[in-house]
Amino acid sequence: MIIDCHGHYTTTPRAVGEYRDQQIAEVTRDPSFRGQKGSLVISDDEIRDSIEKNQLRLQKERGTDLTIFSPRASWMGHHIGNEYTSQYWTEHQNDLIRRVCDLYPQNFAPVAQLPQSPGVDPARSVPEIVRCVEEMGFIGINLNPDPSGGHWNGSSLADRAFYPIYEKMCEYDIPAMVHVSASCNDCFHTTGSHYLGADTTGFQQLVMSNVFKDFPTLKMIIPHGGGAVPYHWGRFRGLMQDQGYEPLEISALNNIYFDTCVYHQKGIDLLLDIIPVKNILFASEMIGAVRGIDPETGFPFDDTKRYIDNNTRLSAAEKHMIFEGNARRVFSRLKLAGE
Amino acid sequence: MIIDCHGHYTTTPRAVGEYRDQQIAEVTRDPSFRGQKGSLVISDDEIRDSIEKNQLRLQKERGTDLTIFSPRASWMGHHIGNEYTSQYWTEHQNDLIRRVCDLYPQNFAPVAQLPQSPGVDPARSVPEIVRCVEEMGFIGINLNPDPSGGHWNGSSLADRAFYPIYEKMCEYDIPAMVHVSASCNDCFHTTGSHYLGADTTGFQQLVMSNVFKDFPTLKMIIPHGGGAVPYHWGRFRGLMQDQGYEPLEISALNNIYFDTCVYHQKGIDLLLDIIPVKNILFASEMIGAVRGIDPETGFPFDDTKRYIDNNTRLSAAEKHMIFEGNARRVFSRLKLAGE
Repeated sequence: MIIDCHGHYTTTPRAVGEYRDQQIAEVTRDPSFRGQKGSLVISDDEIRDSIEKNQLRLQKERGTDLTIFSPRASWMGHHIGNEYTSQYWTEHQNDLIRRVCDLYPQNFAPVAQLPQSPGVDPARSVPEIVRCVEEMGFIGINLNPDPSGGHWNGSSLADRAFYPIYEKMCEYDIPAMVHVSASCNDCFHTTGSHYLGADTTGFQQLVMSNVFKDFPTLKMIIPHGGGAVPYHWGRFRGLMQDQGYEPLEISALNNIYFDTCVYHQKGIDLLLDIIPVKNILFASEMIGAVRGIDPETGFPFDDTKRYIDNNTRLSAAEKHMIFEGNARRVFSRLKLAGE
Repeated sequence: MIIDCHGHYTTTPRAVGEYRDQQIAEVTRDPSFRGQKGSLVISDDEIRDSIEKNQLRLQKERGTDLTIFSPRASWMGHHIGNEYTSQYWTEHQNDLIRRVCDLYPQNFAPVAQLPQSPGVDPARSVPEIVRCVEEMGFIGINLNPDPSGGHWNGSSLADRAFYPIYEKMCEYDIPAMVHVSASCNDCFHTTGSHYLGADTTGFQQLVMSNVFKDFPTLKMIIPHGGGAVPYHWGRFRGLMQDQGYEPLEISALNNIYFDTCVYHQKGIDLLLDIIPVKNILFASEMIGAVRGIDPETGFPFDDTKRYIDNNTRLSAAEKHMIFEGNARRVFSRLKLAGE
């Protein structure tokens, strides 16, 4: 079985965007507008249509089996409106992920976005974690290290403000993917410099903190191949050593996992060569940031399975760990029908 | 000859830090404090002592010849105080670089920091460029893409606000290294996530802009091996293609250069394998961010010459381009005594 640990519902039916547009209009008129969750009327057929023509088609074409699936990252938009805006939007988005997974229980497993909001205590996200895991069987969360959308004016992941989330993650044994949303800061490009910068930043915040000392079983996934981290592994090893931290093997690699969303062969080869196999999870983030065909290969940039298949250094057993074994360990609550 | 294009004067005599402490005390008392440039009394012997025991010793030990030398990057501190604070500090720092180069004209060539300041028009830095190039023979500048020190609340490098600097760079045919200073934002680690994130961000801002169309001869150096860029070359190629930009060969590689400040063999091998040789400049940033010995190799992490020497793919002629030829082309104003 091939498990893609990083997919977002980027092809939602039109009513989802309309709901969000309505929310945005309301908080634009009145930033403190509270409103209510309201309803989102979407038929199962609309969901089927949006999935079967897209993610499910690509799963079949590329030979992957299961996508660990969460709401569209760039649409989390935690910086938009206030905590109620984020709360209602998040609940709908997570509800929708549950519906996709109910329709295709063999193909998708649910991961939640959180109702983070700038200036709001991260602990306020805990009830949504409880709802998603206890009531809806979610197996992980996405945690935004910068709910401000590129202004970076909140707490570091090292801050104890995040500890209530970490406690709940450990209690449930669920991992978090450290994943920002869209940038509303013109200095950053959402799926380029902002995503990659946030990956590197999240890693840095965690390894130079007490988080993994205080939560030895916490599991964090750094997406997009770890941002700049594997390419600069020597720099990070050196910085840790200079500043008196334990080596990365101890301070990072018992808790941090890297996904394989790196969109060319040589990048993937570096990742597989630097980071221990036990810390790598297969992922493509399709349908996501990069949707075109690489003219150099004739295949989609984000068909990352191909790069791992083509890697000549790893054994079949090691590739199996990356494709399935590690994901089963990290997402310990993953149970498919019949298992 | 081996030219290290990225070195900062990180070992300045004590009076430099004392001057800065005095400045900081003054603007802490009164943020609008103007004051005056004042004097910085440092003897040639103090400079010799600070250089001969450090950078010059390491040049000899490592077998490099010339360092393109600029003020300590983490001390530029453009976010501190106001434009006068930055103006006076910058002038002193550049004056000091000139003195080092006068004492060791065969070993150091001068690059300037700019008196940038948050909220101040970048054009106000032009007179210092003129002073440094015309009066003091500087051959390049460091350009800070985030003078706020990690708040990213200023203009993107794509903004026309930077055009007066680019015009002057083209007129003088001098390159800029895109280099931030210390982070005053707790979310970022200065020499880790902040430096690397800023490298990626600067690259992204430039390649998705009109800057190189408007300034076809502009030369920009992205330090620290280009941040996350070479590792994610496929992602950037895909993003450019999806969004209708010209390929990176056209939109980036006629104007952008990457230095070799990547502190492990496999990272350097990736850089040399992905980026065309003509776009790579040798650099170590010694004595800088990472000062320790790599226990895996027994050599300093930042002894990057060793990684390039050990690379098995490039020819001697290609390594010569990286070590000297490209730097001579990019820093066209570099003239050593006797040349």
